[in-house]
Amino acid sequence: MLRTTSTRLPRSVSLFGRLTRLNSSFTIPATQKGVIFYENGGELHYKDIAVPKPKPNEILINIKYSGVCHTDLHAWKGDWPLPVKLPLVGGHEGAGVVVAKGKDVTNFEIGDLAGVKWLNSSCMACEYCELGHESNCAKADLSGYTHDGSFQQYATADAIQAAPIPKDTDLAEVAPILCAGVTVYKALKTSGAKPGQWVAISGAAGGLGSLAVQYATAMGLRVLGIDGGEGKEELFKSLGGEVFVDFTKTKDMVSAIQEATNGGPHAVVNVSVSEAAIQQSTEYVRPTGTVVLVGLPAHAYVKSEIFSHVVKSISIKGSYVGNRADTREAIDFFSRNLVKSPIKIIGLSELPKVYELMEEGKILGRYVVDTSR
Amino acid sequence: MLRTTSTRLPRSVSLFGRLTRLNSSFTIPATQKGVIFYENGGELHYKDIAVPKPKPNEILINIKYSGVCHTDLHAWKGDWPLPVKLPLVGGHEGAGVVVAKGKDVTNFEIGDLAGVKWLNSSCMACEYCELGHESNCAKADLSGYTHDGSFQQYATADAIQAAPIPKDTDLAEVAPILCAGVTVYKALKTSGAKPGQWVAISGAAGGLGSLAVQYATAMGLRVLGIDGGEGKEELFKSLGGEVFVDFTKTKDMVSAIQEATNGGPHAVVNVSVSEAAIQQSTEYVRPTGTVVLVGLPAHAYVKSEIFSHVVKSISIKGSYVGNRADTREAIDFFSRNLVKSPIKIIGLSELPKVYELMEEGKILGRYVVDTSR
Amino acid sequence: MLRTTSTRLPRSVSLFGRLTRLNSSFTIPATQKGVIFYENGGELHYKDIAVPKPKPNEILINIKYSGVCHTDLHAWKGDWPLPVKLPLVGGHEGAGVVVAKGKDVTNFEIGDLAGVKWLNSSCMACEYCELGHESNCAKADLSGYTHDGSFQQYATADAIQAAPIPKDTDLAEVAPILCAGVTVYKALKTSGAKPGQWVAISGAAGGLGSLAVQYATAMGLRVLGIDGGEGKEELFKSLGGEVFVDFTKTKDMVSAIQEATNGGPHAVVNVSVSEAAIQQSTEYVRPTGTVVLVGLPAHAYVKSEIFSHVVKSISIKGSYVGNRADTREAIDFFSRNLVKSPIKIIGLSELPKVYELMEEGKILGRYVVDTSR
Amino acid sequence: MLRTTSTRLPRSVSLFGRLTRLNSSFTIPATQKGVIFYENGGELHYKDIAVPKPKPNEILINIKYSGVCHTDLHAWKGDWPLPVKLPLVGGHEGAGVVVAKGKDVTNFEIGDLAGVKWLNSSCMACEYCELGHESNCAKADLSGYTHDGSFQQYATADAIQAAPIPKDTDLAEVAPILCAGVTVYKALKTSGAKPGQWVAISGAAGGLGSLAVQYATAMGLRVLGIDGGEGKEELFKSLGGEVFVDFTKTKDMVSAIQEATNGGPHAVVNVSVSEAAIQQSTEYVRPTGTVVLVGLPAHAYVKSEIFSHVVKSISIKGSYVGNRADTREAIDFFSRNLVKSPIKIIGLSELPKVYELMEEGKILGRYVVDTSR
Repeated sequence: MLRTTSTRLPRSVSLFGRLTRLNSSFTIPATQKGVIFYENGGELHYKDIAVPKPKPNEILINIKYSGVCHTDLHAWKGDWPLPVKLPLVGGHEGAGVVVAKGKDVTNFEIGDLAGVKWLNSSCMACEYCELGHESNCAKADLSGYTHDGSFQQYATADAIQAAPIPKDTDLAEVAPILCAGVTVYKALKTSGAKPGQWVAISGAAGGLGSLAVQYATAMGLRVLGIDGGEGKEELFKSLGGEVFVDFTKTKDMVSAIQEATNGGPHAVVNVSVSEAAIQQSTEYVRPTGTVVLVGLPAHAYVKSEIFSHVVKSISIKGSYVGNRADTREAIDFFSRNLVKSPIKIIGLSELPKVYELMEEGKILGRYVVDTSR
Repeated sequence: MLRTTSTRLPRSVSLFGRLTRLNSSFTIPATQKGVIFYENGGELHYKDIAVPKPKPNEILINIKYSGVCHTDLHAWKGDWPLPVKLPLVGGHEGAGVVVAKGKDVTNFEIGDLAGVKWLNSSCMACEYCELGHESNCAKADLSGYTHDGSFQQYATADAIQAAPIPKDTDLAEVAPILCAGVTVYKALKTSGAKPGQWVAISGAAGGLGSLAVQYATAMGLRVLGIDGGEGKEELFKSLGGEVFVDFTKTKDMVSAIQEATNGGPHAVVNVSVSEAAIQQSTEYVRPTGTVVLVGLPAHAYVKSEIFSHVVKSISIKGSYVGNRADTREAIDFFSRNLVKSPIKIIGLSELPKVYELMEEGKILGRYVVDTSR
Repeated sequence: MLRTTSTRLPRSVSLFGRLTRLNSSFTIPATQKGVIFYENGGELHYKDIAVPKPKPNEILINIKYSGVCHTDLHAWKGDWPLPVKLPLVGGHEGAGVVVAKGKDVTNFEIGDLAGVKWLNSSCMACEYCELGHESNCAKADLSGYTHDGSFQQYATADAIQAAPIPKDTDLAEVAPILCAGVTVYKALKTSGAKPGQWVAISGAAGGLGSLAVQYATAMGLRVLGIDGGEGKEELFKSLGGEVFVDFTKTKDMVSAIQEATNGGPHAVVNVSVSEAAIQQSTEYVRPTGTVVLVGLPAHAYVKSEIFSHVVKSISIKGSYVGNRADTREAIDFFSRNLVKSPIKIIGLSELPKVYELMEEGKILGRYVVDTSR
Repeated sequence: MLRTTSTRLPRSVSLFGRLTRLNSSFTIPATQKGVIFYENGGELHYKDIAVPKPKPNEILINIKYSGVCHTDLHAWKGDWPLPVKLPLVGGHEGAGVVVAKGKDVTNFEIGDLAGVKWLNSSCMACEYCELGHESNCAKADLSGYTHDGSFQQYATADAIQAAPIPKDTDLAEVAPILCAGVTVYKALKTSGAKPGQWVAISGAAGGLGSLAVQYATAMGLRVLGIDGGEGKEELFKSLGGEVFVDFTKTKDMVSAIQEATNGGPHAVVNVSVSEAAIQQSTEYVRPTGTVVLVGLPAHAYVKSEIFSHVVKSISIKGSYVGNRADTREAIDFFSRNLVKSPIKIIGLSELPKVYELMEEGKILGRYVVDTSR
């Protein structure tokens, strides 16, 4: 039942059930299908649950498709130092249609396409929100974590934070852009790498990595990819990558990477969450360059040798999803066909299987659930 | 024989032997007094050595005073991952008078005041030199490390890199500005902290820390100082610091610092080289804030927990001395009386004793050697 | 009836009617006193008008004091290329107490101090609002221009945009900070001038200029002031200014300013709206420096000679009030006693006289109206 | 005798006389062919002149090809407010082979390829040189203006400023990159436009404009081109441009440009030197956007309406050629085949005809002179 992008029709062809026809009014049911769990690590139930009501500042989105992210696994297991709401409907990469809105909402109309993203709402009044750092808001409300998310047919989102999605967008493909795409795009911006400079993507052939390679290429960067195993180099190069370093075949990674980039990449985006790989990135990065941390492993540390950190004048920066501007821009790159989203679509009812695959570390590419089945 | 700034005459009073009268020509001897060592950890000889000859691009500076820096100890011991020249005359905070110059030199005249700083010369043609990152040049020639330094009466320096010192400057007091002053000033610039924001100085009452507090205050920053022991808070506040946290008396440093700064300092400058203190700074820094590494302990690591590094979106930046612009600016703050340099003057012949004190960790304030005795 | 700050009691002394005692509930009348006009250039009526009701996202502020700004004159005359609401209550520098709030408001409590500023609300969803450029929002709602302002006893403001004012703040003195203070502070930030660099304030002794000099000094900048006439230099120097150039006594302004700053100021903030003075600032600014435009004369142009604009690589930047962060920071400098607000207090009923003075160009310092009389 | 790039062989094919074979020693003649003039506006002599001797810090370059720039016309006419050396050999886009070097030169070897660019040398010690703003150095020595330039077979250049050209580069094609390419590339950097944003190129189909369109595209920008006349749109689109606005066919330029870019381009690079076009660019630029001035018309002004300059918070920035880093980067984009240089090659002896064409405004594309004939 899995389907990859490579076998799909061109995006301009209207697919029944994929490119939603917009209507000006909708009938909203009282109950819906969703996947919910009642305790951390407890059973994931696919069942009938109540449709939420939007508050004055919220929109109600009829979710058509939702991406599945590794964060969903952490939320279910509860292994992050941040407690989740219980019971919880997970999911924070939901794309759908606005079917209702609170009375204070002015920036969405019924029938517009919209996305549920990681940051569901924030206070908009603190020093972080003031400057577009809403992800750092102490009152951040998180989709699929502290606010019921997109693994249901109808989800609510603060209208200010919900992502506007252009008309005629393929809702299945855009779903992973809402978190995975935004996250790597923001990481590339955070890296400070300028067009013509080298960026290394550690974990280049995975779900996040594949998107990072494409965004980096579209941003005029030269991309070195690091990953290991069969077929990874081919995938990487097909996405626009320039130099691939296979860690399963390379003895001295630091030298290999520095030689290939004439002194080290100007920036490294660590999509891989391996502590060893991250520490290594502080060694091969170019003097005055930047190492970006973007993944969120539990209980892990980045370690950097102080002498060379100072003498090379490097930076290690954390990049945490993206704000509204990053989201709009990341979707724009996608809409302009500069970034493809390689997805596998399954029914929402099959979601528990994806959690199993994630826990076993067997996930390849990005799963997207179709909420209609 | 020690003398502190607090007991000194106002700087505008001309002190015999301190404010050098400028002459238009000088007689240069063939030999001079200097402190030299022939192997790492070997004896420090105060003896007659040859006066060096300036190359076409160099000036010869009659060093009057030179600061003593912890780096001089590392150079002597040879415990850094960068080999020193042998035999070696150490020192890289030398202030004196230009007494000769190579024929290509156009930016210094005989009689000008000039300083020997850490970076003696660089290639000026690589990608780092092009943009003012000369400290990161692979061909950097370092005073008192790979180039004979300022622990002698006459030293050479590339005219492009030598520091211009304004007329009538007190040469003893300006000496430590040439490395210690520049280093902390650059670290504050690197921190990105803006006027009105909080910067924490870890190690605020030491030699570097005292300078950092004054520069930060002059830059419009609010300063929180961290140090421990008798009299440290008084010193800190006399320099313009606002809040002092004594680590010998505070149980929960992270909470104490975050409360005092209403959420954590926007930046931390780690003058202290304690690994534990540095790691702690990654915990108390404000979200979106910056931790600056500036000291150079041998074989030490900075360690930061990845989850909170990302979620708080913090940066860890290395700051390595400063470039020509940083040097000019750091001296300018000093010349405008916004920064005092608390020094203890001893004779060059007594230098070996200072090495002993440094090795025993008993140094307090900044020693400056008078090359005339 | 005019009173200047210099004759006032220390700010820490509680003045009857000035430092409002906070209560947890308030009785809100149906009508109030306000100054209203019905057509551009028409009569300014001081009369009983209805108290507005806050929308769900708004707070109702009992305005105690309001500053009077030159913009109020433009709003009344209607000579800007942006139509005003009619009838209109002007004013956008109002400081008071929150006495009621809409049900969606979470960032203010009844009894908090709050300020009405120029930007009353914006859409929060466009590309400008996303990044803190709310002033540039196409749907910006402006206090005293398109939204009834602070020349009344009770005014409404979007809670997200209203300025939080710290407890125990002098409401009369803080009033002009809400627009004049924020505007010059933001202009200084926009200038890019760094601590230790020179900024010229053109119009340094006027209401905006006096604030600019103080903010610049607190930000570690060296300040050159330009103005003309008796007593201006003394005022300027008392505020922390370093070099004063009197245009009534100086023949060659460009040379005089460049000499005093060793090559021209790194930045110029044009508080003066004279076209000739602004053009001159493009001539004396330092190479690579920035000219900031901040005033809003009607039908005026800045003109810069292209050859030298390019060869000197200068910038001319427009700076338009400030955003929420700028407002919070500007108030913080004031709260820390780094900036004094030199005001003259009159009754709200006397406001029409101030319009007359403004139209005649006879205004000196900043008028603040007391809404209680 | 003119030849366009479109008919040329692939760059990797070695062309006799174009891809110079490197030798380790060269015989340098005493005289050479060059084009020289003795007074402004005087006759341009193609004649035998002495080969210059490199100073200790200089290299001697055997110029193979040199681009012809509009600046050469200004130098000859002497209509800029900056006097030229007389007699003068013009030219500042010279590409050739290092055949001799002064004894202090360490960054070039005999046989390396090198370029003569506009900035021949600078002091390297002033506040501008310190930070890579050498173009703004008061002691800047300019090729073909205050220093004999590249319209001769052998030219000298300061080794620090001379442009390193990678081995096997086509010397005819790279010549215009040394000034025209660097200039537009730097202007794009100065514009601050980020990948995915719109940049308008005013004068998009001319020599500078054609390069600007290609650099902008390679930098991930979306390009709107403005120009007029037959075939311009086709040329523009073949270079990667997205939207073309023909000023000969468009009534309301401001509206047309703002509509095409959904609110105005984020940046405008004014390659055209028309005063009216430049003023217009201040009107259609997006709020918070940047207008870049890069051409150098004599006696011309940029004029911007202050009210909208402030309310839209725009910037007007001058961008003056580029520094060493910009040069290296601009050549790198060319070397990676992301930018083509559309040239017409003629003999050096025919140079006076090109001056005539320039004066008549009849120049199309970029002329490059072959110094061998």
